[in-house]
Amino acid sequence: MKNGMPGGVIVIGERINGTRKRIGEALEKRDEALIRQEARRQVEAGADYVDVNGGRAGLDEVETLSWLVDVVQDEVDVPLTLDSADPAALEAAIEKVKKTPIVNSINGEAKRIEGILPLVAAKGTSVIALCMDEGRMPESVADRMAIAENLAGAADSAGVPMERVYFDPCVLAASTSPAQPAVVMETTREIRKAWPDAHVVFGLSNVSFGMPERRLLNRTFLAMLVACGGDAFIIDPTIVDMRSTVAAADVLAGSDEYGMEYLAAFRGGKFE
Amino acid sequence: MKNGMPGGVIVIGERINGTRKRIGEALEKRDEALIRQEARRQVEAGADYVDVNGGRAGLDEVETLSWLVDVVQDEVDVPLTLDSADPAALEAAIEKVKKTPIVNSINGEAKRIEGILPLVAAKGTSVIALCMDEGRMPESVADRMAIAENLAGAADSAGVPMERVYFDPCVLAASTSPAQPAVVMETTREIRKAWPDAHVVFGLSNVSFGMPERRLLNRTFLAMLVACGGDAFIIDPTIVDMRSTVAAADVLAGSDEYGMEYLAAFRGGKFE
Repeated sequence: MKNGMPGGVIVIGERINGTRKRIGEALEKRDEALIRQEARRQVEAGADYVDVNGGRAGLDEVETLSWLVDVVQDEVDVPLTLDSADPAALEAAIEKVKKTPIVNSINGEAKRIEGILPLVAAKGTSVIALCMDEGRMPESVADRMAIAENLAGAADSAGVPMERVYFDPCVLAASTSPAQPAVVMETTREIRKAWPDAHVVFGLSNVSFGMPERRLLNRTFLAMLVACGGDAFIIDPTIVDMRSTVAAADVLAGSDEYGMEYLAAFRGGKFE
Repeated sequence: MKNGMPGGVIVIGERINGTRKRIGEALEKRDEALIRQEARRQVEAGADYVDVNGGRAGLDEVETLSWLVDVVQDEVDVPLTLDSADPAALEAAIEKVKKTPIVNSINGEAKRIEGILPLVAAKGTSVIALCMDEGRMPESVADRMAIAENLAGAADSAGVPMERVYFDPCVLAASTSPAQPAVVMETTREIRKAWPDAHVVFGLSNVSFGMPERRLLNRTFLAMLVACGGDAFIIDPTIVDMRSTVAAADVLAGSDEYGMEYLAAFRGGKFE
């Protein structure tokens, strides 16, 4: 089982998201073949979890997310990340999963914590905890750590152990907030120090918003965040740069000894 | 002036090295045109320093290094890294340089320190200090830090300020020493903590020796080392992956505000 650096970087495949046009249309049509293909491609590219997001205007999220869970886990064997802010949708989806999922997500807002964390505790799932309050992005390391402390306290009170908490320091765009990537790196080190058993997860691609050569910035930031103690990334693993950088970072962080997985990926053409 | 993270990553171009076959032959023939071209290409690719190494069996190193210094600084305006273990060759080269060079290198061995450090102090140059003893590679973080302490003490006694010391934690091959890249990262953090004014420099490409897709491993390790506080790399900047990763890391570490240099490099075709 992957858990913290010794097991290597955890890849959460982000492609099955109803807010993307192509996926949203597939959800409307209940296009099972397309969803199966998206799940399969991500797992073949190295996804350890497949994120499922059933949010699409006009669709019932409870039904849509449950349908997605059924389709995806009929196609692939990896566990799922259940991506919703709606406790009812999450509860229905959790009833269907075959493997322990990650609930995506809670944040610092009391309503969100109270709506979702008891479910996480009762069902024994993991949970992504965003270091932000509803609608307000944190500025400093201290802002983020204050929210993380609050979330850690809530998890503890609810009986959720830290190894099932994935803190997300909230990546912002370097183009508009030049100091933010360094702040996220420092927050990652602080979280790793405060809660050694917890995970630190990132929605990576925001960092390069508004800049050219986004894959270059994304892959470079991924490597830097692993060096800071980050261990989970919500990315598109079908992008070669992403999966090859994960494989390289695992070798360099010492979690892929003698590069066994790296060599297998290379020989399997995964770097092409 | 580049100095530590605020000024961004320092690139030392490694190509003019007499131990490389093509350069060694150029040194024998005193092929000025080839050396000029190698210097020019590296500076155009972003080298902040050009390393010059006149070591070639059968040639007088004092004369050869001095010739290299004359040719390279007639072609390009950046300062040089004077790469030799011979105090006489270094002394003659230092007399010729127009800009403050980096002497490459001393290590933990008393003879090497005593032969070279007084020259560094007297001439006000910078110096690369390898965290190894002659012929014996260090294993652990503690091994490296013990040598670094020794070198820092020697620099202090000689009157060389820490901002002119470039500690090199000594990168080894991940293929044969799987734990070593992580040890080098930890050593980098320890050096940065112990001597905040010092630089940390790396001969990067050793890390990928014996593995496929070496550029992938090299560029990923570069990004990880910047995140640990490393700020200088002895690399081939004519390799696109190397210079583009440096540019991206500078944006993400906050030393290239609003990506001004990154955007200029992109527009100038430097990422192609």
